[in-house]
Amino acid sequence: MAKNKNQTKLRIIPLGGVDEIGKNMTALEYGNDILVIDCGSMFPKEDLYGIDLVIPDVSYLEKNADKIRAFVITHGHEDHIGAIPYVFQKINPPIYCTRLTQALIESKLKEYNLPKKIHVQCIKPRDTVKLGCFEVEFIKTNHSISGAVALAVRTPVGTVIHTGDFKVDYTPVDGEVIDLATFARYGEEGVLLLMSDSTNAEREGFTMSESKVGECFEKYFDEGEDRRIIIATFASNIHRIQQIIDSAQKHGRKVCFMGRSMENVTGIAAELGELNVDPKQIITQDKAESMPKEQVVIITTGSQGEPMSGLYRLAAGDNSRVKLTKGDMVIVSASAIPGNERMVYRVINNLYRLGVIVIYEALDAVHVSGHACKEELKLILSLTNPRYFMPVHGEYRHLMQHALLAEKMGHDSRDIFMPEIGKVLELNRKEAKFNGSVPAGSVLVDGLGIGDVGNVVLRDRRVLSQDGLVVVCVTLSGIDASLLTEPDIISRGFIYMKDNEDLIQHSKQIVQELIEDLRADKLRDWPYIKNEIRHQLKDYLYAKTKRTPMILPMIIEI
Amino acid sequence: MAKNKNQTKLRIIPLGGVDEIGKNMTALEYGNDILVIDCGSMFPKEDLYGIDLVIPDVSYLEKNADKIRAFVITHGHEDHIGAIPYVFQKINPPIYCTRLTQALIESKLKEYNLPKKIHVQCIKPRDTVKLGCFEVEFIKTNHSISGAVALAVRTPVGTVIHTGDFKVDYTPVDGEVIDLATFARYGEEGVLLLMSDSTNAEREGFTMSESKVGECFEKYFDEGEDRRIIIATFASNIHRIQQIIDSAQKHGRKVCFMGRSMENVTGIAAELGELNVDPKQIITQDKAESMPKEQVVIITTGSQGEPMSGLYRLAAGDNSRVKLTKGDMVIVSASAIPGNERMVYRVINNLYRLGVIVIYEALDAVHVSGHACKEELKLILSLTNPRYFMPVHGEYRHLMQHALLAEKMGHDSRDIFMPEIGKVLELNRKEAKFNGSVPAGSVLVDGLGIGDVGNVVLRDRRVLSQDGLVVVCVTLSGIDASLLTEPDIISRGFIYMKDNEDLIQHSKQIVQELIEDLRADKLRDWPYIKNEIRHQLKDYLYAKTKRTPMILPMIIEI
Repeated sequence: MAKNKNQTKLRIIPLGGVDEIGKNMTALEYGNDILVIDCGSMFPKEDLYGIDLVIPDVSYLEKNADKIRAFVITHGHEDHIGAIPYVFQKINPPIYCTRLTQALIESKLKEYNLPKKIHVQCIKPRDTVKLGCFEVEFIKTNHSISGAVALAVRTPVGTVIHTGDFKVDYTPVDGEVIDLATFARYGEEGVLLLMSDSTNAEREGFTMSESKVGECFEKYFDEGEDRRIIIATFASNIHRIQQIIDSAQKHGRKVCFMGRSMENVTGIAAELGELNVDPKQIITQDKAESMPKEQVVIITTGSQGEPMSGLYRLAAGDNSRVKLTKGDMVIVSASAIPGNERMVYRVINNLYRLGVIVIYEALDAVHVSGHACKEELKLILSLTNPRYFMPVHGEYRHLMQHALLAEKMGHDSRDIFMPEIGKVLELNRKEAKFNGSVPAGSVLVDGLGIGDVGNVVLRDRRVLSQDGLVVVCVTLSGIDASLLTEPDIISRGFIYMKDNEDLIQHSKQIVQELIEDLRADKLRDWPYIKNEIRHQLKDYLYAKTKRTPMILPMIIEI
Repeated sequence: MAKNKNQTKLRIIPLGGVDEIGKNMTALEYGNDILVIDCGSMFPKEDLYGIDLVIPDVSYLEKNADKIRAFVITHGHEDHIGAIPYVFQKINPPIYCTRLTQALIESKLKEYNLPKKIHVQCIKPRDTVKLGCFEVEFIKTNHSISGAVALAVRTPVGTVIHTGDFKVDYTPVDGEVIDLATFARYGEEGVLLLMSDSTNAEREGFTMSESKVGECFEKYFDEGEDRRIIIATFASNIHRIQQIIDSAQKHGRKVCFMGRSMENVTGIAAELGELNVDPKQIITQDKAESMPKEQVVIITTGSQGEPMSGLYRLAAGDNSRVKLTKGDMVIVSASAIPGNERMVYRVINNLYRLGVIVIYEALDAVHVSGHACKEELKLILSLTNPRYFMPVHGEYRHLMQHALLAEKMGHDSRDIFMPEIGKVLELNRKEAKFNGSVPAGSVLVDGLGIGDVGNVVLRDRRVLSQDGLVVVCVTLSGIDASLLTEPDIISRGFIYMKDNEDLIQHSKQIVQELIEDLRADKLRDWPYIKNEIRHQLKDYLYAKTKRTPMILPMIIEI
């Protein structure tokens, strides 16, 4: 077995992801051992009509299930844990992660009610675990969620450092700065490959500290002294929520959590001691409505303008318990995730229309990124000084900027590898090169279906969304193919039928004449007749409307 | 007639627009005279399934067609001229605009091949025209298209200044700075109402000069000395194209225009002398491909990543004449219009994958906005010093920032009016207040249909786009309501039917049993039966798939 050439090399395989590469899941393979990093999902973009969730294609892992020693999860964001309930229906290795990540995974598993027991093992930064031939050390990092770690994976051919999502925060809310010393230690020892977060590789300088947001909140607690304050942010950003709670306490305000995930995550974090809040400071929504405005802070979901979220409902006047009124102050403490801009802005516009004061990212420093900018990326490249470099976590353009950064720092472009999903990088102490690929990419989740919505179904949904459909039902005699009744036509999403009776009537006539003509030719080829109906109606309807609805002919033979 | 109370007041009516208010069209009405400013269209956002274009609802103008003295058009962008071919099918007053705007309108009218003759009258900045009781002076401004003007409208109750889209550029490419002196002259004389562009009211400082982009181009012409250079920008940004042509000339490069609108608009602009280009400098795409790379610049459409545009096809390797190769340099000289971000980034990612060097807005100053930032807005507010102020051109949040700016400058909040589409502001020398509204808003254009796609059709398209549809066709005897054949079921966009034969078979069975049960009850109420089919199938399919396709039952009675 040791003779197999592959087995003398370490294989790095990015799995899953849509636009972003190497984010949701990455596999490290050596000999008979596979280690998987992260197991995330993505929200579908608008061109994935009706899809609920996008998860990685793990067919390669299923095929090699016996080799998988563990999943290690870098942090508890959805794009790193969201696929677990799906993927772990098929395979079931142990999971290693920090405490908050563990709690979030377990809460998710409870929700999905999986029959199987999944082992989620809690580790701490600087812990080391042996997983097959791999030895993994967890390295504390800073990110927009607590408990984020990078990984140092000692392999038989050298050490791989995988940063996970990270930033460098010298003044983090919990006082724990990213463990640069450990990065440096591995750098001294020698790093074979660095895989590093590229999300902000286009941005100059340093990402601002999370504590800057706290200072900004303080300013608005002062300015809005006599106002009710509502702050929307991500439920998982425990440190930001901590800062709001601290400001609230200082200014004598009670705190109301709004939105399902906000209540859920803050509950979990408080239980773990990750969120420091006096239960007496927490109030219900009813209480938040009835108390004097200057004694209340509402912390809510909906910072992305998601329909039915806490902030969305407040802006729409759709929350039966809490009503915003003129003079309330809303802080949207988040950045719009690409694709969500219009939803966010609509909520902001609606809030303004209510006479509410709104503070958002375009106006003040009420949000900072959780990802490293160029100077931080250089710091990690410099500390780890890797033999090979693979930028990960980002669209191709981000990876490219990260690669150019490494080149400017003196890394040979031949030592920098631009990943693609499924493309296998093979390396050892002497060389690294791409060699083939494995099945990988996106699996679409729609309702209970995992992967059953393919291109045909998506294409039909797209066509239907554009010009709707026309159903033509024709009942023919099984004896002589004569029409037993007038063709029936209904349409949806095409035109408003009541206003277009002529068009429908004429369409029926076209079908009727067609059937009679074909019958004269003694043609009984149903697929042919359907095709003819489709073509003739398509031409007629396009000429009349310049629209191309989907045309669905049905022939009933009696 | 003069006794009519309304007729002693000037009425300001924003018409049309979706998220942005007072952009596409605004009417000024006094007594028997209506003056309309702009006649623009919007591209539909993703929630307007299948819609081609959004134009203003002009039913108020149609009803008052005899009062309309003219349309004045501030500049030639689509959101200011795009609705003309539709609106002018119903009304036909003269149009006044500057030369390039005129040429763009006429080119558009030719394309639509309207039967009617539309009078488009060319004016120059500082020209004054009398239109009913209104006297309109055109004021030169700077914007991202040549020939942009603001309007000073003298009315019987005072002067209204409408800025159109503008910025203040002290070093514009054509040397013609916005005519601040004329704004100042009106300010001295007294301005009743200022309506001013709010697009960039969230942004501090001054918008950069267009000539900064030219300097940036020069840098890349130097850096990319031995490379082929491809620049994508808006076809209507004549000044930007002029700067590219000038750099090309200086560096001994020929210029190739790519994309239909790029060829069209540069042709028009060159003919008018707005674009200064030696015909000998222009080459075809074939020539651009065969010439030495360092002697070519391609100026292309597609800066928004639009499918089938020039740049999109280049990035996809889909242009049969020009193929990008490693080392080519592409500059995307534009900002992604909100909603287009992913399309733009996909093109950039694909360009990088071709080994092309890509420069875009996140990396360098290859684009500047055409709209005024806070300091410029203050300048115009200060120069015109209006009695009343109405921020226009922007989402509500932009208007709000502009209003707050005016308040900070000492304007009483009671003199500032936040417009909404259709809401009528009535004013004279003594007072201004909102008074009622007129029908206004969006009309959807889909194919040949103008306004025939309403909420029902859109809702159906949305539902169809999410989970597709299931058509159930049942043929019943007219005599005893017995099933004449097995129910037929087809689906589209729901599941892949071939993989789900059991589901389809069981659905048929449910329908069959339902019909037989109802028949036993001697029920012949077709709408009731259809409803039952819909409900029972919906429940069954949801339980099996957690999806909710549209269910379309058809009953054929024979």
